[in-house]
Amino acid sequence: MTTMRAAFVQNGALTLRTDYPAPTPHGDEALLRVRLAGVCATDIELLRGYKGGFCGVLGHEFVGEVVAAPADPTWEGRRVVGEINVGCGQCSLCQRGLGKHCRQRTSLGIIGRDGAFADYTLLPVENLHAVPDHVPDEAAVFAEPLAAAYELLEQATIGPGQRVTVLGDGRLGLLCAFVLAQTGCDLTVIGRNPEKLALLAGTGARTVLSSPDTLDQLASDPADIVVDATGAREGFFTALRLVRPLGALMLKSTFADRLEAFDLSHLVVDEITIIGSRCGPFAPALAALASGAIDPRPLIHAEYSLDEAAQAIAHAGAKGVLKVLIRP
Amino acid sequence: MTTMRAAFVQNGALTLRTDYPAPTPHGDEALLRVRLAGVCATDIELLRGYKGGFCGVLGHEFVGEVVAAPADPTWEGRRVVGEINVGCGQCSLCQRGLGKHCRQRTSLGIIGRDGAFADYTLLPVENLHAVPDHVPDEAAVFAEPLAAAYELLEQATIGPGQRVTVLGDGRLGLLCAFVLAQTGCDLTVIGRNPEKLALLAGTGARTVLSSPDTLDQLASDPADIVVDATGAREGFFTALRLVRPLGALMLKSTFADRLEAFDLSHLVVDEITIIGSRCGPFAPALAALASGAIDPRPLIHAEYSLDEAAQAIAHAGAKGVLKVLIRP
Repeated sequence: MTTMRAAFVQNGALTLRTDYPAPTPHGDEALLRVRLAGVCATDIELLRGYKGGFCGVLGHEFVGEVVAAPADPTWEGRRVVGEINVGCGQCSLCQRGLGKHCRQRTSLGIIGRDGAFADYTLLPVENLHAVPDHVPDEAAVFAEPLAAAYELLEQATIGPGQRVTVLGDGRLGLLCAFVLAQTGCDLTVIGRNPEKLALLAGTGARTVLSSPDTLDQLASDPADIVVDATGAREGFFTALRLVRPLGALMLKSTFADRLEAFDLSHLVVDEITIIGSRCGPFAPALAALASGAIDPRPLIHAEYSLDEAAQAIAHAGAKGVLKVLIRP
Repeated sequence: MTTMRAAFVQNGALTLRTDYPAPTPHGDEALLRVRLAGVCATDIELLRGYKGGFCGVLGHEFVGEVVAAPADPTWEGRRVVGEINVGCGQCSLCQRGLGKHCRQRTSLGIIGRDGAFADYTLLPVENLHAVPDHVPDEAAVFAEPLAAAYELLEQATIGPGQRVTVLGDGRLGLLCAFVLAQTGCDLTVIGRNPEKLALLAGTGARTVLSSPDTLDQLASDPADIVVDATGAREGFFTALRLVRPLGALMLKSTFADRLEAFDLSHLVVDEITIIGSRCGPFAPALAALASGAIDPRPLIHAEYSLDEAAQAIAHAGAKGVLKVLIRP
């Protein structure tokens, strides 16, 4: 193979290239055959110009098979998922163990590194995690966003006795709710779509349809921790209303808009903590998929072939749609 | 006594009243004779309209003597400092132990409760802390702002091996630096006034005069935790530049201005934590004053009689001035 299919984005426009050069692993990189990939809100934002516009192959949620791993051939033939950030290894952040935040980092399908909406992709072997045999591709493909949801538990101590509210019933909001429900906290999920909220039946989460009245009611007895997974600017201000003094607002939303001016002294007087939260640990995500504690497959709304990548992404951006998969 | 002197603020104007009704303790309140009081930036902000304008006797930093405590006469005759917030005791926040953030709270000299720039004031006995005999009034009067500095240690784990930057060499910035220096962290304090920074000699803190060059240099190797004690809107954005990914920005500034629009996704991508920080625990503050671990008296720049309260506050608001005291 010297060429392959790849969903290539440039200047915000997506093209399916059938003559894209197939990648060759360098150094500690492994060559991966993509088995299944998932469309994320970040893909949609990147097409809208978030991060100043990415140029390359889109896609960062995937499950694949290691075709070649010159640096460590024991990986060859294994089914894997992969962490998306690759630090330079040299800078002071990398040396402080903060490689995922390296200023020179590449991120699969997001910054300076071709992604997974393609027949093949590359990642360093240290980014790979083997998928247990009995976890189907359709569950394993959620490892990356589920890891991002588990990042909440890395950044705050959450457990029984705590009142936690998730704002947003989209892809990431539901995954956050699945993870938080595992902690035994007193969980409320606020959404706008009864069918999406219904996916939380059996988790123990209380679900609330968003309305001025229900928000007023929740604000009158605010939560210890609020997770904003709305992906919208307004979510921040709603979330602030729902968190108690000395509580924490955890931000899972990234969006290209700027926040309007606001009064920072509110944060000081109420001693609110705001925690930005991004990529997370794969190990607990894979463990939850392997044990069946979390089964994200009911979130799958559609599957497309790689040839239909543009349709897949458009579908994922439509109102009310949860996870859309792309199968090369 | 039926009347007393009091520095009364109304519609942003301060008057020294000599015929102000002397207060009478109700319920669990103690009547306190004010021995010494301190002027805080919040007093100056209140005169500028912060919090929509306070109407009442100003002043919340004080050391006093208990004249009468009907609810618990064992307090009578004791020299005390006092926590300034009084919750309603009934609401869900008070019942969750968050009385200092009660929505119906009064705050001494700030919200709905006459303050300490007067001959006498009132506080519930549960707000009082006895001052050890050998701690002079001039040190004890710093208990409230020093407690606010100790709040940093309640909200974040800070110790050896961590790099902490304090932005601001004003009253609260220096007190924060004194407290942080006690933890053994690697401490840098950025200020604009060499004489103020010189007060940190012997604490182990590195001091840096703020300039575009020095800020660029610090931003290139950012700190684990940055404390914004500038009291100015620009401080927030400078502090954000100085904190590393996954680090924390602790806000000690309150100001009436609104923050300009900013890009919240920076917080998410860099996984920054922002922690609003206000009033803090008196016990460690009094312990540090009693042991001599912290001696804030070099911060005293002037002392006025209560009759000169207006001059005292004007003096405290002048550039480069640290603590101004008012002695009834």
